[in-house]
Amino acid sequence: MTVTARGRGRPARHSLDELLALVVQEFNARGYDATSMEDLARATGLTKSSIYNHVSGKEELLRLAVARAVDALFAVLDEPVAGPAVDRLEHVVRRSADVLADQLPYVTLLLRVRGNTEAERWALERRREFDRRLSALVRAAIDEGDVRADLDPRLVSRLLFGMVNGVVEWYRPGTHSASDVGDGIVALAFEGLRR
Amino acid sequence: MTVTARGRGRPARHSLDELLALVVQEFNARGYDATSMEDLARATGLTKSSIYNHVSGKEELLRLAVARAVDALFAVLDEPVAGPAVDRLEHVVRRSADVLADQLPYVTLLLRVRGNTEAERWALERRREFDRRLSALVRAAIDEGDVRADLDPRLVSRLLFGMVNGVVEWYRPGTHSASDVGDGIVALAFEGLRR
Repeated sequence: MTVTARGRGRPARHSLDELLALVVQEFNARGYDATSMEDLARATGLTKSSIYNHVSGKEELLRLAVARAVDALFAVLDEPVAGPAVDRLEHVVRRSADVLADQLPYVTLLLRVRGNTEAERWALERRREFDRRLSALVRAAIDEGDVRADLDPRLVSRLLFGMVNGVVEWYRPGTHSASDVGDGIVALAFEGLRR
Repeated sequence: MTVTARGRGRPARHSLDELLALVVQEFNARGYDATSMEDLARATGLTKSSIYNHVSGKEELLRLAVARAVDALFAVLDEPVAGPAVDRLEHVVRRSADVLADQLPYVTLLLRVRGNTEAERWALERRREFDRRLSALVRAAIDEGDVRADLDPRLVSRLLFGMVNGVVEWYRPGTHSASDVGDGIVALAFEGLRR
């Protein structure tokens, strides 16, 4: 899809990817609820009607944006890993950190949805489903005897994802590499800090 | 301080503590920026002028509310712990989880400030100072040989606090006890999950 921007000279044109990138920036800066179609028009340099030519409104833009993060995270769950559940768990944790670094604004948006609209409730449900899949993996790793059995699997999966999700608060490309972050999370969570 | 509410019968009265509790709930539900003095009057059952009798406006209410979380977190840093830096670090992590559970709405607000006002910038600076103190403790524990030396202390302190802070997203009194959460964080972070 290409969207033509208003303006006097050559019209600016955005691919859907470029449009979404600008929209997500705006949602993250203002908050989704507080962002109007006027704000999106200003941020993208498009008229409202040219945006409406391609999407039904800001809720569809939200859904397209969070779907990008959701799809990338669920793809990680399906990556084949040979070996026991603990290795799959470690893989999911490390690769989720990669996705977060790679799709930072989209994951940030996903983590901030509040549930006021259908698109947000869908995103929250996908987050819960991801959490269930991760808890099941923790449980499997405990059952196989590779993960300590004295912690509640739900608590473990929440803490793991607290640590991964918290990265959106401070990660900026260039400070640490995504693989340093992923390695750090895995080292801390699976081996522990104490020597 | 006692604030008298409007109303026909006996005027409702709030202590400053009760007033803050209602205000923080409103800030967390709407976002600080989006909350007006009208919203706060509605939420507290007070007139705007009776609120203005006691504070200069919503920014002072924000400052009072985040100060509560900040003071509780900094008090943890000053709690005396005999022993090596790694034990002090473990203590700070566990006790921060207690503070979070105990002061959940205030810590939630602290973690959501954005920096648009003086009070918010002060809160962000206190968060950075806490982060520096925690990083220094990680560095000391590495220097004493008790914490693995292959991870950047800044990364470690950010991951530890990502895990602690992430708890505000899901913790509700009654699901887990605060001490289960603190113990889980310490077990995961210091000993690791792998058996």
